[in-house]
Amino acid sequence: MSKVATPQPLRRLRAGIVGGGRGAFIGSVHRIAAELDGQAQVVAGAMSSHPEIARESAAAWFLERAYTSYADMASSEAADRNGIDFVIIATPNDLHYPVARAFLSAGIHVVCDKPLALTLAEGEELVRLLAAGPTLFALTHNYTGYPTVRQAREMVRGGQLGEIRKVMVEYTQDWLMEPLESRGNRQAAWRTDPARAGLGGCVGDIGTHAQNLLEFVTGRHIEALCADLSSFVPGRRLDDDANILVRLGGGVKGTLVCSQVACGEENRLSIRVYGSQAGLEWHQQDPNTLIYKPAGRPWERLSTGHGYLSPSAKAATRVPAGHPEGYLEAFANIYRNFMDDVRRVERGQPPVRDYPGVQDGLRGLRFVAQAVASSRAGSVWMDL
Amino acid sequence: MSKVATPQPLRRLRAGIVGGGRGAFIGSVHRIAAELDGQAQVVAGAMSSHPEIARESAAAWFLERAYTSYADMASSEAADRNGIDFVIIATPNDLHYPVARAFLSAGIHVVCDKPLALTLAEGEELVRLLAAGPTLFALTHNYTGYPTVRQAREMVRGGQLGEIRKVMVEYTQDWLMEPLESRGNRQAAWRTDPARAGLGGCVGDIGTHAQNLLEFVTGRHIEALCADLSSFVPGRRLDDDANILVRLGGGVKGTLVCSQVACGEENRLSIRVYGSQAGLEWHQQDPNTLIYKPAGRPWERLSTGHGYLSPSAKAATRVPAGHPEGYLEAFANIYRNFMDDVRRVERGQPPVRDYPGVQDGLRGLRFVAQAVASSRAGSVWMDL
Amino acid sequence: MSKVATPQPLRRLRAGIVGGGRGAFIGSVHRIAAELDGQAQVVAGAMSSHPEIARESAAAWFLERAYTSYADMASSEAADRNGIDFVIIATPNDLHYPVARAFLSAGIHVVCDKPLALTLAEGEELVRLLAAGPTLFALTHNYTGYPTVRQAREMVRGGQLGEIRKVMVEYTQDWLMEPLESRGNRQAAWRTDPARAGLGGCVGDIGTHAQNLLEFVTGRHIEALCADLSSFVPGRRLDDDANILVRLGGGVKGTLVCSQVACGEENRLSIRVYGSQAGLEWHQQDPNTLIYKPAGRPWERLSTGHGYLSPSAKAATRVPAGHPEGYLEAFANIYRNFMDDVRRVERGQPPVRDYPGVQDGLRGLRFVAQAVASSRAGSVWMDL
Amino acid sequence: MSKVATPQPLRRLRAGIVGGGRGAFIGSVHRIAAELDGQAQVVAGAMSSHPEIARESAAAWFLERAYTSYADMASSEAADRNGIDFVIIATPNDLHYPVARAFLSAGIHVVCDKPLALTLAEGEELVRLLAAGPTLFALTHNYTGYPTVRQAREMVRGGQLGEIRKVMVEYTQDWLMEPLESRGNRQAAWRTDPARAGLGGCVGDIGTHAQNLLEFVTGRHIEALCADLSSFVPGRRLDDDANILVRLGGGVKGTLVCSQVACGEENRLSIRVYGSQAGLEWHQQDPNTLIYKPAGRPWERLSTGHGYLSPSAKAATRVPAGHPEGYLEAFANIYRNFMDDVRRVERGQPPVRDYPGVQDGLRGLRFVAQAVASSRAGSVWMDL
Repeated sequence: MSKVATPQPLRRLRAGIVGGGRGAFIGSVHRIAAELDGQAQVVAGAMSSHPEIARESAAAWFLERAYTSYADMASSEAADRNGIDFVIIATPNDLHYPVARAFLSAGIHVVCDKPLALTLAEGEELVRLLAAGPTLFALTHNYTGYPTVRQAREMVRGGQLGEIRKVMVEYTQDWLMEPLESRGNRQAAWRTDPARAGLGGCVGDIGTHAQNLLEFVTGRHIEALCADLSSFVPGRRLDDDANILVRLGGGVKGTLVCSQVACGEENRLSIRVYGSQAGLEWHQQDPNTLIYKPAGRPWERLSTGHGYLSPSAKAATRVPAGHPEGYLEAFANIYRNFMDDVRRVERGQPPVRDYPGVQDGLRGLRFVAQAVASSRAGSVWMDL
Repeated sequence: MSKVATPQPLRRLRAGIVGGGRGAFIGSVHRIAAELDGQAQVVAGAMSSHPEIARESAAAWFLERAYTSYADMASSEAADRNGIDFVIIATPNDLHYPVARAFLSAGIHVVCDKPLALTLAEGEELVRLLAAGPTLFALTHNYTGYPTVRQAREMVRGGQLGEIRKVMVEYTQDWLMEPLESRGNRQAAWRTDPARAGLGGCVGDIGTHAQNLLEFVTGRHIEALCADLSSFVPGRRLDDDANILVRLGGGVKGTLVCSQVACGEENRLSIRVYGSQAGLEWHQQDPNTLIYKPAGRPWERLSTGHGYLSPSAKAATRVPAGHPEGYLEAFANIYRNFMDDVRRVERGQPPVRDYPGVQDGLRGLRFVAQAVASSRAGSVWMDL
Repeated sequence: MSKVATPQPLRRLRAGIVGGGRGAFIGSVHRIAAELDGQAQVVAGAMSSHPEIARESAAAWFLERAYTSYADMASSEAADRNGIDFVIIATPNDLHYPVARAFLSAGIHVVCDKPLALTLAEGEELVRLLAAGPTLFALTHNYTGYPTVRQAREMVRGGQLGEIRKVMVEYTQDWLMEPLESRGNRQAAWRTDPARAGLGGCVGDIGTHAQNLLEFVTGRHIEALCADLSSFVPGRRLDDDANILVRLGGGVKGTLVCSQVACGEENRLSIRVYGSQAGLEWHQQDPNTLIYKPAGRPWERLSTGHGYLSPSAKAATRVPAGHPEGYLEAFANIYRNFMDDVRRVERGQPPVRDYPGVQDGLRGLRFVAQAVASSRAGSVWMDL
Repeated sequence: MSKVATPQPLRRLRAGIVGGGRGAFIGSVHRIAAELDGQAQVVAGAMSSHPEIARESAAAWFLERAYTSYADMASSEAADRNGIDFVIIATPNDLHYPVARAFLSAGIHVVCDKPLALTLAEGEELVRLLAAGPTLFALTHNYTGYPTVRQAREMVRGGQLGEIRKVMVEYTQDWLMEPLESRGNRQAAWRTDPARAGLGGCVGDIGTHAQNLLEFVTGRHIEALCADLSSFVPGRRLDDDANILVRLGGGVKGTLVCSQVACGEENRLSIRVYGSQAGLEWHQQDPNTLIYKPAGRPWERLSTGHGYLSPSAKAATRVPAGHPEGYLEAFANIYRNFMDDVRRVERGQPPVRDYPGVQDGLRGLRFVAQAVASSRAGSVWMDL
C-alpha cells in the first residue's frame, strides 16, 4: 500500500465573508484572491441580509455556514473553536466600519475592501480598536500587490531615480458616463449615494487607489492638494471626475487625475515618477511591465519573472516570465502577505505588515475629505 | 439565531494529481486552475515517486491522501466512494500515457498536460480506451482558454474575415538558449531527452501549442508542412528551433515558427490570420486584446469584458473590462469547461466537450512526427 | 529634338531667413519645411550678426544673398523686384518682434517661429500692424500640421465625440534636467534667460505648444487656469516644469502638464479628449496614428493615408499608408498652407489662413503671462 | 550696406529624372529625397513619353528642361556643361535597364529605383558597364537609410548579439488584396504584369526589400531558400504572397514572409535577429525605435537622436530625439550618401559607396529568380 501519512503541521486558514452576495463582482474577487495559493478557504458568510440571497450565495460557494447577520456571525464564529481565522468585508462602504468593528471586537482578523470607513471619525475609531489588541487588519489597496509596483517601490527606495521631482498618477474609467444610478444599476446606485459611498464619488472610489499607489511607490505623502472636482452627468450627487494638483514631501510636485466618465477608458491606472537620475512608468493594463528611463541611456522594459528583479517583486510572481498575471493575482498577493502575518501571530511572532493597513485607510479618508473641501472652496490649496 | 441551512444540491468536485511535486511549476498551475472558481479541490496526489517528496508536497498542499504510486492511487480512489472525480496528470511526457491509461481504466476522468503521449501508438491506444467508455479527457492546450482566442475563433467561424488566405503563428522563448540540461536543470534535462520528451524538442514542447492554436482559431487542419528544425545549442539532442511552412485546408498557407533559443523572448505566442475581408492578430503576452483589421477601415482593438464580444468570450472572463486576466485564468477556463462536463455526465447529460481532447492530442503527435520527418528528409513537404 | 517648352505660369516662391545660422537646429527645420514640396526656395538670409558666420551659413545653404542686418535685408529685398516673397524668423525669442515688424513694415509676408513676441504689448503691436495691411503672418505651431491632429479637430467639430467634458494635454522633455545654461550650451543659455526667452521657461517654450494644440483640437479656449510652476534645477531663473489645471469654454475641464526635466522623455506631446459619446488620443511620437474610443465599442486606430480620413487630414499626407511621416512633414504642412495663401494674395484672392497666426500668438502670450501670474500668487485661479 | 559676398566653393548638384510623371507617388518621393538637404535640385526630366504629361509634370516641378525621350535627355544633358550631375530612374521596372544603360553610357551617375532590371542578364550587363567606368550607381533600397537600421547593422557587426542564429523578416501589405489590375489601377496593372514587372510579383516588389534589409543588417547572404508563392487573387498573373524558409551563411536560419494581400497591413516591414547573446527587433512603422534584448537583462529601447548610438546612426538623423523622422528622411539618407560620393568623385577622391548598389541589385534579381524557381518546382530548396 503506497498511501503515506501526511504530516500537517499547518492547516488551511478558515475565512468568512460579509457581503459579496450574488451579482457583486468584488465578492468573487476576494474569494479567489484569498484561496488562490491554497492557504485558505472561505467557509462561512453573511453574504446578504436577505435570507434567500444569503442562502443561495452561500450554496453557490459551498460554504459550510451561512448567516444573515454579520453581528451573529462575528459572535458565533468567535465562539467556535473551528471558527474563522479572518473575515473579508466586501459590503458597500457604509458597512465597512460597523462590520470591521464587530469582528475586531470579537478578536477576528479583518481584510476590508477600501475605503476604510465612511468618515474620518469612524476610521480613527478603528485605529484605536486595532491599537488595543493583537488583531490584524488589511485594506485591499490591491494594486500595490502587483510585482512591478513592488519593483518600482524598491527602485525608488534604492535611489535608482535620484531625487524625486515630479509625479503623474491617473485612474480613469468610463463606467459611470451615463446616469446608471437612475436606470436600476445597483452598483451605480450605492456608489453615487453620499449616504452609502461617503463624501467622494470618483475621488473616493478610484482616486484613493491612485493616491495610495502614488504614496506607496514614492514613499512620500501628499502634503497639499488643489482639487477641481466635477459631476459631469446631470443629476449625479457625487463627483465623477477630478483633476488635482499635488505636492508631496521633499518638494515633489505633480498631478493626480481620476475620472469615471472618461469615455473609452476601462481601468486606466498609471503612474509616472521622474527623478534627477531616472524616470519610471507603469500601467495597470499592461501590468507585467515596468519602464525604467535612466538619464542618457535607452529605456529599459523590466518584466515580471526575471532574476534581475528585487526580492519583493520576485516573491509576488507565480509563473515564469512571459506568462501574464493580472488583477486577481495581484489581489491575491495582498492576501498572501496578510495570511503570512496571520500565521506569524498564531506562532507568537510579530507581524510584518507588508500590505496596506488602517493607517493607509486613514490617509485615504483624509485625501478624499481634503479634495472635496478644496473643490468646494473654489479649488484652493488644502493641506493634508 | 441567524444561521441558515445551506442547501447543497451540488458539492465541490474532488481532484487528484499525479506529478507536480515540489519545484515543478506546472503542478501549481494545474492546482490553481482547477480550484480557481471554487468548483473543485485537489484532495489526493501521487506527486512524486520519492516518498519523502511525495509526503512533503502533499503536506504543502494540505492534501487528504498522498500516494507514491499512481497505480495504487487509481485503484484506491476508484474504490473509495468519496474518491476523486478526476485526476490531473502533470508528469514528464513519458508518463502521460501510462498514467492516463491507469485512471481511464479505473473509470476516472482525466485532465492531462500536453502532449497526449510519447508516441502515436500510445495516443491511438488512448483514443480506443476513451471510445470504449464514458470517461472524459481534457488536454491542457491552455492558450485556447483565453477569451480573446475564443473571440477570434467565433469571428472566423462567423465569416467576419471572409475567406481565410494566410496565417502566421509563432511561439518563441529563450529559456533553453544555454545548455541547461548539462548544468543540472531538471526541467531542461527531461525536456531535451528523447526518451522522456519524445521525438520533438521545441517543436513538441511549444510548437504543438502553436499548431493547436492555429487549428483552433481557423477551424482548419494543417494538411502539409515543410519543416526546418535546428539544434543551435551544442550537444543538444532534440531540436530547439523550427521554421515551418504550412498549408491548411481550403488553400490557406502560412508559417509556423517556434524557438527556445530566441534570445530575449519570454513566451511570445502570437497568431495572425488574414482573410479576404479582414485580418486578426493576437499576442499571448497582451492577452486581453484582440486586433481586428477590416478592409479599408480602421483597426479595432477588442478588449475583454465588453458587451460586444461573443458569448463564449464573455463566459471566459471573471472581472470587468480593464482588469487584466492572464495565464492562470485562461488555464482555469479549460478546467471550468471540463468540470461542467463532469457534472453533466454525473447528471446523465451528454458532455459538450468545449476543451481540447484526445483528438487534439493525436493531431499534435502527428504534427511533431511529420515535422521531425520532414526536417530529417532535408526539409521536404510531408502530409499530415 | 525632344526638348519641349515648359510653360511656367507659376514660379517657385523666394524665401529669406533671419537667424538659423550654423548650429541652430530650428533653422534647418524651417528651410527643409519651406522647400519640401518644391514650391519655394530660400535665397536670402541674415543668418547671423557675425559677418563670418553669416557668410559661412549662407554659403552652406547656397543662398544668393547674405546679409548681416535684418533691417538692411528687409529694405533691400523689398526694393528688389526679384526680392523674397516671405521671410522666415528663426531667431531667439527677443528678436521675433523687431524682425517681424521690420519685414511687415516693408510689405513682406512673415513666417515666425513661436512665440509671437517677448511681451503682450509687442504682440498687440503686431496685431495692429497686420490689421493695417495685406501682409500674411504664420506662427509655426507646427504640431497642428500633423494630419492626425487635423483629423482630430474635424472629428471634434463633426460631433463624433458628443459634448466635450475632459481634456488631458502634456508636453514633457528632459533636455534641461541638468543646468546646461551654466555649462556653455547656447540654446540652454538663451532659453533660460528671462531677457531673451520672456516670462516663461518651460511653460513658454513647450507649454504654449500644448495650449495651442488643446485649443486647436477642441475648438475651445482656455478660460481659466491654476498653475504650479517649478524650477527644479538649482540656479535656474525660469520655470522648467509646470502642472496646470485648466477650464475651457463649455464647461470642459482638464490638465496641462509640461516639463523639461522629465527624465527619459524626449518630446512627449500628447492630447486626450473625452466627450459624452467618444474619446480621442494622440501622441506626437507615434504621429501617424489617432485613437478613437466610441462608447461601448472597440477602440479604433485611425492611420494616415487612408480614404476614411477627413479631406484636411488627407491633404496633409504625402505618401501612402504605412510610410511614416514625421516632424518635418508636419512642419512643411504649415508652410504649404501659408504658401497657398501667398499665391492667393498674389492672384488677388482672399487668404484662407489655415495655419496658426497672430491671434494664436497672442493667446500663447496671455497663457504664459497668466500661468506665471497664477503660480507667483500661490497657484490660484486666473482668467485668461 | 550689409550685403556680403557669398563664397561658393560648392554648388547645388543638378539632377534629372526619368519617369515620375503626375500620379506616380514614387517620383515625388525621389524628388523630395534628393532635395531634402538642399544639396541638389531636380532641373531636368523625361517624366512621361506623352508630351503633354511630360510638359505638365515638368511645369508642376518648375523644371528648367523637359524631355519626352530619355535617350535624348541623356545625350543632351551629357553635352551640356551645365547639364545634370546625376539622373533618377523612377519608371516601371522594364525601363530600369535601358534607361540606366543610356545614362551610364553617357557618363552620367544614376540613382535607380529597385529592382535593378527585369532579368539577371540585364543586371549583369549593368555590372559590366559600371565596372568599365567612373560613374556611380545607387539602388534605392531606401529602408536601409533609417538610422535605426544602420544602428542594427553596427550592433551585429560589433558583436553585441554574439553568434547570429535565427532571423525573421517580413514585409506585408494589403493594397493588392482586390484585383485592382482589372479595375483600371495603373500602378496595379504594371506591377502584376510579368512583361513590365519581371518574374516576381509581391516577391519582387517588396520581398526584395525584406531580403535586402535582412542581408544589410546581418551582413550575411541568403545561401538557400525554399519558397511557397501564391496568387490569392483570382486572375492574378504574378504572386501576391510568399512564405519562404531561408538559410544564411554561418548556419543562420529563418523565415522571410511577404504579402500584398495581408488584409489590414499597410507597410509592415520588420526584422528580428536572434544571436547567442542578444536579440534585435525593428519595425518600419515605428521607425525611430530599435529594441535590443540582451540575455538575462531588460529589453532596451534605443531611440534616434541620442548620443549612445553609433556614428552612422547619428549621421542619419536631422532632428533631436523625440521628433519623428520617417520614410522620406530615410530615403533622403540614401541620396545624401550617394551625393557625397558624387562630390568625392568630382574632387578626384574614391567613392565610399555607403548605399545600396549594383551588386545589391543583382542579389535581389537572383533572390526573385530562385524564389520563383523554388515555388514552381514544388517549393523545394534552391541555392542562391
